[in-house]
Amino acid sequence: MELYFLGTGSGVPSKERNVSSFVLRLLEETGESWMFDCGEGTQHQILRSPIKSRRVNKIFITHLHGDHIYGLPGFLSSRSFQGGTGPLTIYGPEGLQEFIEQALEISGTHLKYPLHFRTIEHGFYEKTEQYEIHVHLLDHGLPSYGFLIKEKENLGALQKDKLEAMGVPPGPIYQTIKDQEYTTLEDGRTIKRSEVLSAPKAGRTIAILGDTRFHQEYVDWVLEADVLIHEGTFEGDEWDMAYDYYHSTVVQAATLAQKARVGELIINHLSSRYQKEDIIQLLQEAREVFANTHIANDHSLFPIHRRENNQC
Amino acid sequence: MELYFLGTGSGVPSKERNVSSFVLRLLEETGESWMFDCGEGTQHQILRSPIKSRRVNKIFITHLHGDHIYGLPGFLSSRSFQGGTGPLTIYGPEGLQEFIEQALEISGTHLKYPLHFRTIEHGFYEKTEQYEIHVHLLDHGLPSYGFLIKEKENLGALQKDKLEAMGVPPGPIYQTIKDQEYTTLEDGRTIKRSEVLSAPKAGRTIAILGDTRFHQEYVDWVLEADVLIHEGTFEGDEWDMAYDYYHSTVVQAATLAQKARVGELIINHLSSRYQKEDIIQLLQEAREVFANTHIANDHSLFPIHRRENNQC
Repeated sequence: MELYFLGTGSGVPSKERNVSSFVLRLLEETGESWMFDCGEGTQHQILRSPIKSRRVNKIFITHLHGDHIYGLPGFLSSRSFQGGTGPLTIYGPEGLQEFIEQALEISGTHLKYPLHFRTIEHGFYEKTEQYEIHVHLLDHGLPSYGFLIKEKENLGALQKDKLEAMGVPPGPIYQTIKDQEYTTLEDGRTIKRSEVLSAPKAGRTIAILGDTRFHQEYVDWVLEADVLIHEGTFEGDEWDMAYDYYHSTVVQAATLAQKARVGELIINHLSSRYQKEDIIQLLQEAREVFANTHIANDHSLFPIHRRENNQC
Repeated sequence: MELYFLGTGSGVPSKERNVSSFVLRLLEETGESWMFDCGEGTQHQILRSPIKSRRVNKIFITHLHGDHIYGLPGFLSSRSFQGGTGPLTIYGPEGLQEFIEQALEISGTHLKYPLHFRTIEHGFYEKTEQYEIHVHLLDHGLPSYGFLIKEKENLGALQKDKLEAMGVPPGPIYQTIKDQEYTTLEDGRTIKRSEVLSAPKAGRTIAILGDTRFHQEYVDWVLEADVLIHEGTFEGDEWDMAYDYYHSTVVQAATLAQKARVGELIINHLSSRYQKEDIIQLLQEAREVFANTHIANDHSLFPIHRRENNQC
């Protein structure tokens, strides 16, 4: 499980930062890639990244501002052109489906894969085999959403010592015991899986906030997430400008991370007014509030770890 | 008058070539820039070019395929964000206006400049103070158009010797004589401008073809243009593939240039299958048919010259 950032700027592209997009790579877990937002030029950034468009099977759109959606028609078309045939589901606010369908229709684009839409709103919930997806409304002038991705609890490891002590020698039977809740052995005995596994490993939780003003109420929602991805459009003392433009400062992002006791904070969506040297300053400001803060750059890769006090 | 190429690839962007867009710069003539097509990432290419978005006051769209239009919503938004306030007119096929208006509306984008639309079709004609714009339908599966931009005939130079021989000494009166058809001198004599100017200089003609199959009938339309900009999606012997995909080969582009006796041929819209070394080969193929051929790369700049036998 890792995060790959394709675009970390805000509003308009700059030479250093493209507009919004990142990918949650679940290669080891399910082989899937989930994209969050798709600003113009996302497919261009992919050309210079390890991301494979055909692996992207879910796209989550936080809100409908152009710098978060204008790359969708091109990405969807190119995914088809480049041989993507697996189904793709787009999760986004009301109106997104019409935008995409019109763009594809007017350009005579016929995708070679099934495209599905799920309209999100506050409280939207979906469960896949390994993840829960929760949606929360944010404060951004037009409906903007946050996503909480919760990994299912992982089974503990098989306690081989215990099985051997019970007279069950190693062999293919071990995998069978792990795969099902109860296993009947050849000698007639029944093994209950939970009795021969170590304690389960908690799944990871990733909190992804779209563009938003800072609000204390989000603390409960992202509480103890392993990773929080939060916009930081402005530097720390620009909180009034952030409020006026429905955005957050890097210090507000860090404050939420600190209050919610998350494991790690990754800040994206930086204003193009900030150059490289400013970014170092912004990072320092945020780290004074929450030490485990990172600022994402285009093509940054972050493995997703469990919070330290969340380990089982 | 010069041409700046922002994207010279076809279908999907590659690392070497972005999708279609170029700009006709009329900086010395009128201070304007006219854009032709606007594929995704055009605004990104502009960041690395001398083009100023706010100077672009006309955009011509040859056809509605995604690689020619998906950059429009982002370009229009950024032009506004970056301080563009002058009016902008978009010329394109039926349906383009709806696509743009929906994209801007759904993303809550309010442009700070007036945006006008002109729907083009075969035979469309418009005259500005210095140019005529003619539109011709091409053969591309969906309506694709070519544009002929004809510069107005330029006045000849003032024949100073002749004026002096007529007893009109040099002074501000010379400019007055050039500015109006008839000028009455202080001594009561009337000077007719045409009698003291050298022969007028023919205006230049630029023929710009959108994606198209090759057709003999286009010869008359682009006849003796100073510059022909023509797609060359495929290499010379792929004429059957070009036909199947409604495109042209570089040799077909050169054949049109040669039959129409144009001054110069610039080929764009190259398939991403061709690498740098292939492009040299493609250029050779085309030059065997029409010597004054160039292949445009992203960020190529071409000054527009008059055809040699078209000089006055």
